[in-house]
Amino acid sequence: MSSIDLRDLIAVKRDGGTLDDEQIAAFVHAAATDSAPEVHLAAMLMAIFCRGMSDAERTAYSLAMMNSGEVLAWDHLDRPTADKHSTGGVGDKVSLIWAPLMAEIGFAVPMISGRGLGHTGGTLDKLEAIPGFRTDLTSEEMDAVVRDVGCVITGQTADLVPADRTLYALRSRTATVPTVDHIAPSIMSKKLAEGAMTLVLDVKVGSGAFMKERKDAEHLAAVMVAIGRGAGRNVEALLSDMSTPLGRAVGNAVEVEESVAVLRGDGPEDLRGLTIDLAEAAVRASGEAERLGLPTASQDLRARLETTLDDGSAFERFRAMVAAQGGDVLALAEPALLRGAYEVVSQPVLAERDGVVVGLDALDVGLAAAALGGGRGADGQAPHPGVGVTLDVQRGDTVQAGQPWAHMRVSGSSDPDAARRLLARAIQVMDEQ
Amino acid sequence: MSSIDLRDLIAVKRDGGTLDDEQIAAFVHAAATDSAPEVHLAAMLMAIFCRGMSDAERTAYSLAMMNSGEVLAWDHLDRPTADKHSTGGVGDKVSLIWAPLMAEIGFAVPMISGRGLGHTGGTLDKLEAIPGFRTDLTSEEMDAVVRDVGCVITGQTADLVPADRTLYALRSRTATVPTVDHIAPSIMSKKLAEGAMTLVLDVKVGSGAFMKERKDAEHLAAVMVAIGRGAGRNVEALLSDMSTPLGRAVGNAVEVEESVAVLRGDGPEDLRGLTIDLAEAAVRASGEAERLGLPTASQDLRARLETTLDDGSAFERFRAMVAAQGGDVLALAEPALLRGAYEVVSQPVLAERDGVVVGLDALDVGLAAAALGGGRGADGQAPHPGVGVTLDVQRGDTVQAGQPWAHMRVSGSSDPDAARRLLARAIQVMDEQ
Repeated sequence: MSSIDLRDLIAVKRDGGTLDDEQIAAFVHAAATDSAPEVHLAAMLMAIFCRGMSDAERTAYSLAMMNSGEVLAWDHLDRPTADKHSTGGVGDKVSLIWAPLMAEIGFAVPMISGRGLGHTGGTLDKLEAIPGFRTDLTSEEMDAVVRDVGCVITGQTADLVPADRTLYALRSRTATVPTVDHIAPSIMSKKLAEGAMTLVLDVKVGSGAFMKERKDAEHLAAVMVAIGRGAGRNVEALLSDMSTPLGRAVGNAVEVEESVAVLRGDGPEDLRGLTIDLAEAAVRASGEAERLGLPTASQDLRARLETTLDDGSAFERFRAMVAAQGGDVLALAEPALLRGAYEVVSQPVLAERDGVVVGLDALDVGLAAAALGGGRGADGQAPHPGVGVTLDVQRGDTVQAGQPWAHMRVSGSSDPDAARRLLARAIQVMDEQ
Repeated sequence: MSSIDLRDLIAVKRDGGTLDDEQIAAFVHAAATDSAPEVHLAAMLMAIFCRGMSDAERTAYSLAMMNSGEVLAWDHLDRPTADKHSTGGVGDKVSLIWAPLMAEIGFAVPMISGRGLGHTGGTLDKLEAIPGFRTDLTSEEMDAVVRDVGCVITGQTADLVPADRTLYALRSRTATVPTVDHIAPSIMSKKLAEGAMTLVLDVKVGSGAFMKERKDAEHLAAVMVAIGRGAGRNVEALLSDMSTPLGRAVGNAVEVEESVAVLRGDGPEDLRGLTIDLAEAAVRASGEAERLGLPTASQDLRARLETTLDDGSAFERFRAMVAAQGGDVLALAEPALLRGAYEVVSQPVLAERDGVVVGLDALDVGLAAAALGGGRGADGQAPHPGVGVTLDVQRGDTVQAGQPWAHMRVSGSSDPDAARRLLARAIQVMDEQ
């Protein structure tokens, strides 16, 4: 492919033309192998930003990035594979529940997750609040956990989609990040490389999400679904609300606690409901309900999923996964054993007036948790596992002046004043009508 | 300006916004001083390519590039300054005639010219066919020649518009060349840096020109005029035909010969006419006719310009310029003294049929001259001064089968077969009606 002059391809895209699969592969190959001048890659990234891509181009872009590194295969398993991706939000701990739930009803879930950034949490950061939990499994270890337990949640290996790493960094340097033409292939290339045949996408919309507007979220969802289907996978996307935090816990250890509650049939209704929605969507997309002996009617399928939470079997599956990945399962029953638990103190946040909570802003709550030390800085500094915010109320609840409506878990390096200001801004209370 | 993050500016342009003067200056400053990552410059070049620029942005872009280096000033002269720019063509030797003609009627002409590229000739290459002629004058030498003679034609100094040199190279590497948003500021920054108050632009259109289509040439002309006027200069543009060569001579020494013929009141009518058109346009644009005692009515002004050619006074001015720049003035009267004259032999090109010449393609004639060694290769190899093509006919003339319609001047390193094939393709003869 070295005989292709990237400038010819840049000119095609610059003039609004369409690149074919081979041309896109040449561009991605150059990025992965460092075999083209960086200014060529920069110019191509901007040309794509300005002129856009077709569904077929984005699929080719995703597959070329996928093929730049290791591609996992699960053909040797006797069960269908499924995975989930969320575009990220505040209090979004669905993966911790969804993966064992899906495993319990018969799927293999080889999930590769990421870390938080800024005000959004990351699944790996949450799991690492469990003492000993390893997120750096090799491909062989990952395979063994999937075979033994049915689900695994681990970090990306160095061999996965190296082209995306190069281009991700260059997109940041060339101001070409905010477009679905780069974002969707970046996400999907990683998900395709994980090799699951079924994929559900949880596209968040609202203040705490990457997409603030519904139409932008719908567009991103449609583009990612088209890529996944173009690559031959079973893909469904749901849009979910991120104007307010998901559940009541925001922070790493506190989110593990809340996940365990849902896995045991308890926990906040919004979190439980979204998890079941995403599990139902995955079962439907997979076309594997019959093979796995699952009900096909929506009502019956949802009842089965609820039972799997309520009877503790999903929790047992989670516990087995934690154990297989080196985590201390005792900490699942005893939150005081979670990392950082003894380094924080709880401080109440009091309501200033009586009324109904009509707004509880996801972004502000996320920023408050970050101010307490729960966020991952732009410098990559690890978040504190123990800090965070728990919400005593959710949107629609009533509060009384002087009543605690939230609690902060504060460590020595927290900035509780900043967090308190952000929480005061987050909540909106109105008179009951 | 180092505190500005270019990525913020890139994002403005990427999203279709407008950059202000200071932002454009920061971008150009970064290019001139090598103080930003190249990928920033590459991304900005492509964003400008895709989103375009307003007249005000292009003026700011041109002025910022002008200000990146030396800017010539002519306030100390007691005469108005004028200059000309051509977008390049085949057989275009107008500058050699126009500069002394304008000097003779009272203007100072500090002209900085370029070299040929591919099938188009360059004014400096032509003048260097005169033995001893120097095109590498220092600013001081240039100033002295303008003061003593009234006109000078020399090459660009290293100090002129360094930002354009950086960006010119990067535009080639990022496939962002073909847009008026980069081309017009690149041309105009150099012309503005030369400091002439009046500027006429000869925008060529046709097969042998950079712009093949009239509407593209009109757009380039309008954009350049807007830049020049935005920078406070007197600017006019003419569109001129480049579907067929200008005059009858294509090649360096032969074009000097033909220029001398026109300067002595002789020579082809199309070349003489265009030169007078461009001189008239410059006088009108300058608003200096009265001060210089020139007629203001078009007919009278043109008559004065024709007289200046016919009475030999323009030629005397040219001879003085050649002498001042170290050239052998004897070679102007005796073409055998021009460089390369003894290294070439003349070969006729015969007409294949009787009829009227309805087409004589500029591009093919230019390519034929290049095949003979008269072009400047992409590798920068200097053209042979003696080779070239002279046309015994022009469009509209009749020919008879077996009659020479052109002559090639062939050197030992020419490819006369290729040139002959190109010339056969260039001419189109039809029955007389």
